[in-house]
Amino acid sequence: MLRLSPAPGERLRECGELRVHVAGAEANVAVALASVGVSTRWTSALPDTVLGRRVTDSLSSAGVVLDTVRWTAGERLGLYFAEIGSPPRPTSVVYDRARTAFGSLTADDLDWAAVCDSEILHLTGITAAVAPGSDALVLRAAREGRERGALVVYDVNYRAALSATETAAAVTVAAAPDIDVLICRAEDARDLFGLTGDPVTLARDLAGKLDITRVVVTSGADGAVAWWDGASFAAPALPTVAVDRIGAGDAFAAGVLWGVLDGSPGDALRRGTAMASLAMSVHGDQCRFSAQEVLDVAQGAGREVRR
Amino acid sequence: MLRLSPAPGERLRECGELRVHVAGAEANVAVALASVGVSTRWTSALPDTVLGRRVTDSLSSAGVVLDTVRWTAGERLGLYFAEIGSPPRPTSVVYDRARTAFGSLTADDLDWAAVCDSEILHLTGITAAVAPGSDALVLRAAREGRERGALVVYDVNYRAALSATETAAAVTVAAAPDIDVLICRAEDARDLFGLTGDPVTLARDLAGKLDITRVVVTSGADGAVAWWDGASFAAPALPTVAVDRIGAGDAFAAGVLWGVLDGSPGDALRRGTAMASLAMSVHGDQCRFSAQEVLDVAQGAGREVRR
Amino acid sequence: MLRLSPAPGERLRECGELRVHVAGAEANVAVALASVGVSTRWTSALPDTVLGRRVTDSLSSAGVVLDTVRWTAGERLGLYFAEIGSPPRPTSVVYDRARTAFGSLTADDLDWAAVCDSEILHLTGITAAVAPGSDALVLRAAREGRERGALVVYDVNYRAALSATETAAAVTVAAAPDIDVLICRAEDARDLFGLTGDPVTLARDLAGKLDITRVVVTSGADGAVAWWDGASFAAPALPTVAVDRIGAGDAFAAGVLWGVLDGSPGDALRRGTAMASLAMSVHGDQCRFSAQEVLDVAQGAGREVRR
Amino acid sequence: MLRLSPAPGERLRECGELRVHVAGAEANVAVALASVGVSTRWTSALPDTVLGRRVTDSLSSAGVVLDTVRWTAGERLGLYFAEIGSPPRPTSVVYDRARTAFGSLTADDLDWAAVCDSEILHLTGITAAVAPGSDALVLRAAREGRERGALVVYDVNYRAALSATETAAAVTVAAAPDIDVLICRAEDARDLFGLTGDPVTLARDLAGKLDITRVVVTSGADGAVAWWDGASFAAPALPTVAVDRIGAGDAFAAGVLWGVLDGSPGDALRRGTAMASLAMSVHGDQCRFSAQEVLDVAQGAGREVRR
Amino acid sequence: MLRLSPAPGERLRECGELRVHVAGAEANVAVALASVGVSTRWTSALPDTVLGRRVTDSLSSAGVVLDTVRWTAGERLGLYFAEIGSPPRPTSVVYDRARTAFGSLTADDLDWAAVCDSEILHLTGITAAVAPGSDALVLRAAREGRERGALVVYDVNYRAALSATETAAAVTVAAAPDIDVLICRAEDARDLFGLTGDPVTLARDLAGKLDITRVVVTSGADGAVAWWDGASFAAPALPTVAVDRIGAGDAFAAGVLWGVLDGSPGDALRRGTAMASLAMSVHGDQCRFSAQEVLDVAQGAGREVRR
Amino acid sequence: MLRLSPAPGERLRECGELRVHVAGAEANVAVALASVGVSTRWTSALPDTVLGRRVTDSLSSAGVVLDTVRWTAGERLGLYFAEIGSPPRPTSVVYDRARTAFGSLTADDLDWAAVCDSEILHLTGITAAVAPGSDALVLRAAREGRERGALVVYDVNYRAALSATETAAAVTVAAAPDIDVLICRAEDARDLFGLTGDPVTLARDLAGKLDITRVVVTSGADGAVAWWDGASFAAPALPTVAVDRIGAGDAFAAGVLWGVLDGSPGDALRRGTAMASLAMSVHGDQCRFSAQEVLDVAQGAGREVRR
Repeated sequence: MLRLSPAPGERLRECGELRVHVAGAEANVAVALASVGVSTRWTSALPDTVLGRRVTDSLSSAGVVLDTVRWTAGERLGLYFAEIGSPPRPTSVVYDRARTAFGSLTADDLDWAAVCDSEILHLTGITAAVAPGSDALVLRAAREGRERGALVVYDVNYRAALSATETAAAVTVAAAPDIDVLICRAEDARDLFGLTGDPVTLARDLAGKLDITRVVVTSGADGAVAWWDGASFAAPALPTVAVDRIGAGDAFAAGVLWGVLDGSPGDALRRGTAMASLAMSVHGDQCRFSAQEVLDVAQGAGREVRR
Repeated sequence: MLRLSPAPGERLRECGELRVHVAGAEANVAVALASVGVSTRWTSALPDTVLGRRVTDSLSSAGVVLDTVRWTAGERLGLYFAEIGSPPRPTSVVYDRARTAFGSLTADDLDWAAVCDSEILHLTGITAAVAPGSDALVLRAAREGRERGALVVYDVNYRAALSATETAAAVTVAAAPDIDVLICRAEDARDLFGLTGDPVTLARDLAGKLDITRVVVTSGADGAVAWWDGASFAAPALPTVAVDRIGAGDAFAAGVLWGVLDGSPGDALRRGTAMASLAMSVHGDQCRFSAQEVLDVAQGAGREVRR
Repeated sequence: MLRLSPAPGERLRECGELRVHVAGAEANVAVALASVGVSTRWTSALPDTVLGRRVTDSLSSAGVVLDTVRWTAGERLGLYFAEIGSPPRPTSVVYDRARTAFGSLTADDLDWAAVCDSEILHLTGITAAVAPGSDALVLRAAREGRERGALVVYDVNYRAALSATETAAAVTVAAAPDIDVLICRAEDARDLFGLTGDPVTLARDLAGKLDITRVVVTSGADGAVAWWDGASFAAPALPTVAVDRIGAGDAFAAGVLWGVLDGSPGDALRRGTAMASLAMSVHGDQCRFSAQEVLDVAQGAGREVRR
Repeated sequence: MLRLSPAPGERLRECGELRVHVAGAEANVAVALASVGVSTRWTSALPDTVLGRRVTDSLSSAGVVLDTVRWTAGERLGLYFAEIGSPPRPTSVVYDRARTAFGSLTADDLDWAAVCDSEILHLTGITAAVAPGSDALVLRAAREGRERGALVVYDVNYRAALSATETAAAVTVAAAPDIDVLICRAEDARDLFGLTGDPVTLARDLAGKLDITRVVVTSGADGAVAWWDGASFAAPALPTVAVDRIGAGDAFAAGVLWGVLDGSPGDALRRGTAMASLAMSVHGDQCRFSAQEVLDVAQGAGREVRR
Repeated sequence: MLRLSPAPGERLRECGELRVHVAGAEANVAVALASVGVSTRWTSALPDTVLGRRVTDSLSSAGVVLDTVRWTAGERLGLYFAEIGSPPRPTSVVYDRARTAFGSLTADDLDWAAVCDSEILHLTGITAAVAPGSDALVLRAAREGRERGALVVYDVNYRAALSATETAAAVTVAAAPDIDVLICRAEDARDLFGLTGDPVTLARDLAGKLDITRVVVTSGADGAVAWWDGASFAAPALPTVAVDRIGAGDAFAAGVLWGVLDGSPGDALRRGTAMASLAMSVHGDQCRFSAQEVLDVAQGAGREVRR
Repeated sequence: MLRLSPAPGERLRECGELRVHVAGAEANVAVALASVGVSTRWTSALPDTVLGRRVTDSLSSAGVVLDTVRWTAGERLGLYFAEIGSPPRPTSVVYDRARTAFGSLTADDLDWAAVCDSEILHLTGITAAVAPGSDALVLRAAREGRERGALVVYDVNYRAALSATETAAAVTVAAAPDIDVLICRAEDARDLFGLTGDPVTLARDLAGKLDITRVVVTSGADGAVAWWDGASFAAPALPTVAVDRIGAGDAFAAGVLWGVLDGSPGDALRRGTAMASLAMSVHGDQCRFSAQEVLDVAQGAGREVRR
């Protein structure tokens, strides 16, 4: 999808220009992973217009493989308008997602063998909520991924503008048997599943409630924790001057996936918080940093000026 | 609706920013008329979001009365993406009009007495084609206008991206009994009604075919003619360096309406071609020029630099 | 008037472009009130040029009624050049207000019945200082407002670049008998009236000294207090990342007026601090936020990202 | 002075930003001459503000000597707002020159020996018209220049917004005894002095009427001619795609002065038309081209792309 | 390489910002071909910096295959600064190509089997001149291409800033035995090879002189001709409003290559002139148009506005 | 040299535009000093292109004397690409300094009497490292300055991208006998000279080790100290919202030089920290503030808004 945003300090209702950024939760994760050097494929449906082609141009430039993208005629590209806030003015979003190409996609349209031909399959709750029938498509994907041997990662990623908390919880519960790693914001753990307590407790209880052995819980400025094969792990958030908060969660997920591929849960959390911070330091949803740039930040290296 | 456009020389598929202009055929006519000092009301339906409010902010700033606008929840604001061309690259448009607030509007939603409380009622064929049922709404408006004593002006304004030529012709034929003044491009006269010949012939034959006594036919760089109560009138196009051609037809219509209110058919055509030229000399669909600015151009006054 | 400002981080002496914002203390208050849905009229004199018309276009777009504006020929529009600072670089202003249309306005030019036909009449000390004779005009307005039954609110709003402290104090004293609500910065209370102590003491002592029963004192980051019919009220300032501090005082005044119309002094202060914070979160002097947006902030609602 | 202009295709009444250019007839001539390598001094009065300093920063960067500039307190810097047109929309100018520092300058403020210490003294009719008393100052300058041995060049440069044709004619007549070279637009020759005929006739008749032996007459796209010591010279205008016409006349004058210093009247005209064309090919009033760039164009050298 | 350009109407010596475009003759051809759907590989050497990576991001986004690109450390990325002219101001270029990564490339660095694994191998004279030794590299490439069965296309593309005419002619002569299709500007045919006559004569004589059976000669606004297997073909240039002339020659070459792959010499010329015109209608060197967009223009289809 | 930077929040690898700033350590110091009113000369070599001329245009506009600048043909202008960070993303720099005009400069090219004809001669370690042979040139300059009676100030200014710590230390040691005032960052004192302890200890030990009687040590947010003729002085850093950190060190050096010219070491440090803070409050390397602006900040005067 495309994100359209006024410049900082400007408002949607008055601005003369909108900046264009390619966005979308799974696309953001794919770009972030490709940028650190992980081979990545992204699957979706797009309208065959210059706007739809713009999305693949962007993902291609990062090296994401796009051979499973389905091109449609007659549908829209999903848009959202995002006004970046400045406290106490919140960042606010106007979704514009009626009748999108993705919304018209059905399970039969996809070549599941190709879609799931990878080590990890990443899915998000936001995608399950964007159109009627999207939930079934996401559940099918989780099932296909599991059966075809991919590690299934599911990011709850709740959006109040898209679905009720009960609906989002029900989808997560339905997907749970196929989920290997669950990522969930602490506030979503509370709002969707009625859990309480500190982040580690939330992660442990989510794992128990949903019978998932690996659960990551994020708490924004308080960092991230994981309940992972019965043990807990934690990583603090990094001191950050946020330029644009949107996309930080997707960058975090990318860091976790990269860490899972490479090493320990602790690495996964540290890369996640580093990538989230870096994503917030630039405009747009995407997080295009090299492996070295991410690791420098994750390891606390680096002066204020590098020269 | 909103128009989103890259800067000149940039492309929709690659541009970093999109300029935002409030647009829409009838809205353009209303703004142009209000700018020359004519009291104007605009009726439509808009989503009650910052994007919808942006439309009324713009029209209010020009002085257009908005007391019949209907605010809706849950629908979209119509958008279109326009890439301004440079020969031989055409100006190209991607419409994005599914599920708009206007598309959800029905005849019962409107207070027809208020809508038609004016000397002239202006309607366009583009509006009749934007959504299923829009044609009925426009036909009803023409009927209400006629019955309530307004002069009904109908601009054929055919858009291939919105409807077939047969459909657009049928709507025009259906509306014809209620139309006092018809505005039609020469190429539309040919494509929709199968007419041939020079513009004056087209205007006369359209008048005959549709049984409308006043018909204006425009021919772009060849100017405009009218078949008006049995006589012909003409005005040449003005030498113009086009910055942005979109909206020129609406500005022309505004000039014709203004001329009809004030004077002779000849004045109407001259004001129309002047306003069309001025509209093309600025970015955006709107034509915000004062009466004096328009008359100076219509009368050929003016140096290249005024100081 | 118009404000011309370089982009953030740029300087007046070197910048390539100046951003244009419509400004002026009373105009800012009118726009802020109209934006939350309060019916508002603004009265002034403007040159009948595209620059003067730009001012009314802006106010019209917010819904401010302009039927008492007086158009003049031959005078200037007031300008000011504002360079937005970044600590320790102060925000600095170059006023350019010689020979403005407003400066030529006399009491006889106005239809006082129309000007004062409202529940509240808002006046500021800055306006009393912009030109020779402006003080008399403001005093006359206060008198007319009082006599015609409007609640008179007077914002001291001292500007060292426009008048001496003694002059500003004398005008305030002269207007005091007609003032229902006085708004004054704590530093102005000290500099103009020689008062000392904490903000509540300043408010109470100002009330006593000027014999005004309702006095609001603002202290920037320390919030605002009121001495109101013999009791004190207070509201803290909100945590704010300031994008542009200019106009915050006017937004505060608008919040106070809105609160006075609707409810208790406490509400007035809370709306005032909320609107001041919101005004600082965007570029320009104007504060165009809906009632809901202001109340959300005043009540501490809201996440960092709303979606 | 400063010129403030919207981007091409934008309007003063609506634009979000104004581009800032240092301007002023004599300043433009000085910058253009300094840019081709001629030693140049510029004399005027400026307010000692960041805006005034901006003017000298700009002239310094081109190498103009500024040791006779007078800094004042309390006055304004002259401004003008220029909307660059696109046919048939004219370029239009809003002057904003009340109470400028220059307007407060009197003959006694200047060190005439320093001001006139050069081979040529350049004066313009526009300067004679900007404020009450400016005409006397310009006449005094012409007299001082003549007496101190400088060649006095006077550019009539009539501006309808600043003075009546009779006034401008009278000033020219009064200055004529001290003028060595007169530059005049063909249309000004007609409007101010009632002359008729082709440009050469106008030049010859102006020379006769004012008793000046060297007269240059410009005719825009028809080029320029000179009646020079009893013989006529001519140079055609160059094929030009005008980006911004303002300042072309000053660039022409600079070319004439440079040619007068270096060579024949024919060279002067050719350099003038080349510099006028180059000035129109860039935004802003100034013409900053090197001697080689000007001569290449004057001699018709050069491909469309140089690489 | 990167191209850095001021906005239209601005100058390199004064502009506040430079627009960044990825450029380079062969890269432009590759992007243009990939955009119409032809599989394309680009081979070069780039520094492994964010600037070098920017080049491959851009080419990847168009779908160009980059598996033979060589990444180096310690060398520069070639730059050039281009000021887009407006007649009579020429477009002027400052090359900045000392010590580039490409300049350090030797024949042994390349896997020739991979480089030449395609139907056509495209080479240009500009590349042969950018660094000492580049000529040998280009000659080797031509030889490798010929021996490995690729059709070798050589674009003379002379740049006076890079080499003497004699040098460029000598390189072309040396490469001739391996060249299947030669592309040459009419002026280069005259300057490098001393030929005279109309374009067809130039093409035929070049073919004879160099013993190449297929020669294309371009003449800017006069279109292009080919001497092809003993017969002549021609295509007129299209009416074009040039936004940016740089890259037109490369777009022409891409059209020719595409036509050669698909069809007749006549198609090749028509596609070449269409792509050259489209390239000039947008900013930057690249020509990113779809096959349909190019064919519409080549066939003269299309209104001024498509909607 | 020129600095090319994306807008804040944008990245070098993706940005559409680069902002252009004239930069270079000694040039920054010269501009900052000229801006506060100190007579300043800058000596270097520049290519005689529009890019090289751009550098002198900028310095001239600040009033820097440029009569010892050497113009060369065939060499490059030094560039650097700077991406301004936002924590934890560091500000990162890509130097592009191969084959610059300055690198080709030898001691014999300069008129040392003219170069050293001033009260203070300012040199930096960065310049000593930019090209082979630059170290010898800087050592020669220090010797010439000392012998010709100028106070020699040397700023260590270490850049890891340009030389090894050992090399930079060796150059400093070699220059030490000619250095009157040494400026050194605390981290450079540790990395180059193996010193430890708090800043005052570092300054005292540096003075001892290098036998220099006046040593200034800076510690970023911890302010600056001096060991000056056997006594210690200190100035805290000022609370600063950094817009752009690059150039702060040069501005600090300028403040120290100004203070040395005018007064006590304490003044020098306070002016240095004030100028460093002001430099960070604007985009670009240069620090163009008037003496009054600097002194206001150094003395803690000033409201957040001055009007």
